[in-house]
Amino acid sequence: MNLPVDTAKLQNEMDTLAGFTQVEQTGRKGERAVTRVVFTDDDMRARAWLKSLYEDAGLAVREDAVGNTFARWIGSEPDLPAVGTGSHTDAIPHAGMYDGTLGVLGGLEAIRAMQRAGVKPRRSIELVMFTSEEPTRFGIGCLGSRLLAGTLDPARADALLDKDELPLRQVREAAGFAGDLTQVKLPADYYSAWAELHIEQGPLLECDGLQIGVVTHIAAPASYRFTIEGFGGHAGALLMPHRRDALCAAAEIILAVEHAALATAAIDTVATVGTVKVHPGAVNSVPSRVDLELDVRDTDPDRRDTVMAQVRKAIADVQERRGVTVREEEVNADAPATSSRAIVASIEKACESLGLSHRRMVSRAYHDSLFVARIAPVAMIFVPCRGGVSHRPDEFATVEAMTDGVRVLAETLRDLAG
Amino acid sequence: MNLPVDTAKLQNEMDTLAGFTQVEQTGRKGERAVTRVVFTDDDMRARAWLKSLYEDAGLAVREDAVGNTFARWIGSEPDLPAVGTGSHTDAIPHAGMYDGTLGVLGGLEAIRAMQRAGVKPRRSIELVMFTSEEPTRFGIGCLGSRLLAGTLDPARADALLDKDELPLRQVREAAGFAGDLTQVKLPADYYSAWAELHIEQGPLLECDGLQIGVVTHIAAPASYRFTIEGFGGHAGALLMPHRRDALCAAAEIILAVEHAALATAAIDTVATVGTVKVHPGAVNSVPSRVDLELDVRDTDPDRRDTVMAQVRKAIADVQERRGVTVREEEVNADAPATSSRAIVASIEKACESLGLSHRRMVSRAYHDSLFVARIAPVAMIFVPCRGGVSHRPDEFATVEAMTDGVRVLAETLRDLAG
Repeated sequence: MNLPVDTAKLQNEMDTLAGFTQVEQTGRKGERAVTRVVFTDDDMRARAWLKSLYEDAGLAVREDAVGNTFARWIGSEPDLPAVGTGSHTDAIPHAGMYDGTLGVLGGLEAIRAMQRAGVKPRRSIELVMFTSEEPTRFGIGCLGSRLLAGTLDPARADALLDKDELPLRQVREAAGFAGDLTQVKLPADYYSAWAELHIEQGPLLECDGLQIGVVTHIAAPASYRFTIEGFGGHAGALLMPHRRDALCAAAEIILAVEHAALATAAIDTVATVGTVKVHPGAVNSVPSRVDLELDVRDTDPDRRDTVMAQVRKAIADVQERRGVTVREEEVNADAPATSSRAIVASIEKACESLGLSHRRMVSRAYHDSLFVARIAPVAMIFVPCRGGVSHRPDEFATVEAMTDGVRVLAETLRDLAG
Repeated sequence: MNLPVDTAKLQNEMDTLAGFTQVEQTGRKGERAVTRVVFTDDDMRARAWLKSLYEDAGLAVREDAVGNTFARWIGSEPDLPAVGTGSHTDAIPHAGMYDGTLGVLGGLEAIRAMQRAGVKPRRSIELVMFTSEEPTRFGIGCLGSRLLAGTLDPARADALLDKDELPLRQVREAAGFAGDLTQVKLPADYYSAWAELHIEQGPLLECDGLQIGVVTHIAAPASYRFTIEGFGGHAGALLMPHRRDALCAAAEIILAVEHAALATAAIDTVATVGTVKVHPGAVNSVPSRVDLELDVRDTDPDRRDTVMAQVRKAIADVQERRGVTVREEEVNADAPATSSRAIVASIEKACESLGLSHRRMVSRAYHDSLFVARIAPVAMIFVPCRGGVSHRPDEFATVEAMTDGVRVLAETLRDLAG
């Protein structure tokens, strides 16, 4: 059965969502620069608009204490565990318009396509918009899905600080989410199955000329903060032999991270220093302190540990040689996830019935599904994006690719909901 | 004649001025963390308070179009060129409470000491508070003194942008300084002599156990901006072999700058990368662009040029090897200044008559006097600061050291004003 996806409506809603952004719209057609940080005005306006779409589709909407938003199409046996789908709509600074958003608006369109076709699912189908998949504001990714899966301590979460030193508790309450975070965790039998639709954020489908990626594993991500304390002073008066410049030490650490990732010689190892904060941060002041944030990922958690061991060895050398002190804080170091064979099989069956080319693959980016996997069987559906580019304004997926993904998702959800 | 300096009043006023700051006061006694960026509310409140002190001292106050503030004690022959003194009161982020401020409040106390002693100067004595000696907001130091000396084009100055992309013209007008910047330049015969009092910002006086430094040269400062353009993407999905990480390139440049400064083997060469701005600046994004600001100084301008030549050679290599592009922008590259022999002699005579130990020295930090030197004979008076520390909250000078400086300044101004 070929479920009727409204391609124009999907594209139109993707464009509308891209308009809720803090940055100027300078992209070409189909490309929009988007900055939508959790609980900012733009995020709140996007959430309100999404809820209006859910209500138009006759879905029952609830929000939890961290702002995860659930829109449920109630099945004929509403007491059965539901089938879940969804993703996130927050966006890092100067990102693109497809990351996460396709999983939310595509999930909604999949439900509407089933409704149009007169499908009556046995299990309820629930669409989730997770709070803060991106770590931009609170320094840790997948805030909503971690809490939902019970892998992040609620008290620790509430104490997380944003760049203005505001705790999550205060920020979420100001946004209207005032409940107790301990209530966010879902029971293990809440979902019978989960499938997330997402752009690939890598080049493989495009290179292979394939339409659908069926994700069998999600790589293990870890992130760390390093604080390098040196000795500051006036850039004119503090003489070179007396310096313990925190930024020069940081530069060596940045290069050591790159070196350690390359040294594994495995294509699946990636390590990135993505942020640098220099204190005091004046052209005429020797840096006294530098904060770095490191992201390291691998499909093999042991290899990831090897990378970190090498980074720490380099840091010990920098501390000794430069007379600086480096503090390390682990933000998260998560285990990889493996997809459910049954859901992978359901996705592959959907591809076959729709005549779409497909392959199995690893997700190197991590996703809310990594955490949903702790409480439910999961899999993911990838569609190609141009050049594998993501987290940039020129991130792009064709409407045909998005539509293929929604069709596969709809068939899969229908199959899983029985 | 020993002019009666009011030590308690000086300390009290230094403390009060330190209270006009954006940062919390966490310093120990005599140490205050200060952030006072030009034309912020704190700067404006400090200016208002200073003008009230000038008026209490019976000084005639005028302000020019860039906010340089002149407080004149009118001499018995008011048509003669005046004798000038002064410094700045803006402070970089998380700086201390002595840099610049001693030259303004100490200059005021020097005038009041002469008034108390019944001195009747022949020439007028003019105290100047210069706008934005620090480059924090507009990226170029000595904004007010450069314009006063005619070494910065007024149209270029008005177009300078702050971090929020606001041009100086708009910012100064909002602060109430609406005139034409071409009116700021002073004629060459405006001052017959100029002396600036300042903390040393270096360790030499303290090491030698001396009370006064008599500055004979001010080192030649230069500053540059570098913009490194690489290729961004998702930190999970953009694989290591395909990266052109702008931050890794920047790290190599930071280390090349340090290496080039050390390579001259001259104690007077210093080079510092003081700011780093990473775009997009997210833990899970490969940096696509990095902006660096470089400060390089030397007493020998040719040696400074050698440092820059070596940095540029390293940059060419980084561009080639990493496939990034680096743009260089010269912010300023100023010539050194030499003090007037007559004023140096006057300062030394004052030290002798007051029984204060002294030595001649080079200023490695640069000061507004570097630019006043273009239109008037100048010299500077240094007093020791603890550990040579400056541009940090623990910057510290004893009240005795400050008082010594004010006494020498007062004697010198009296001598020069005839």
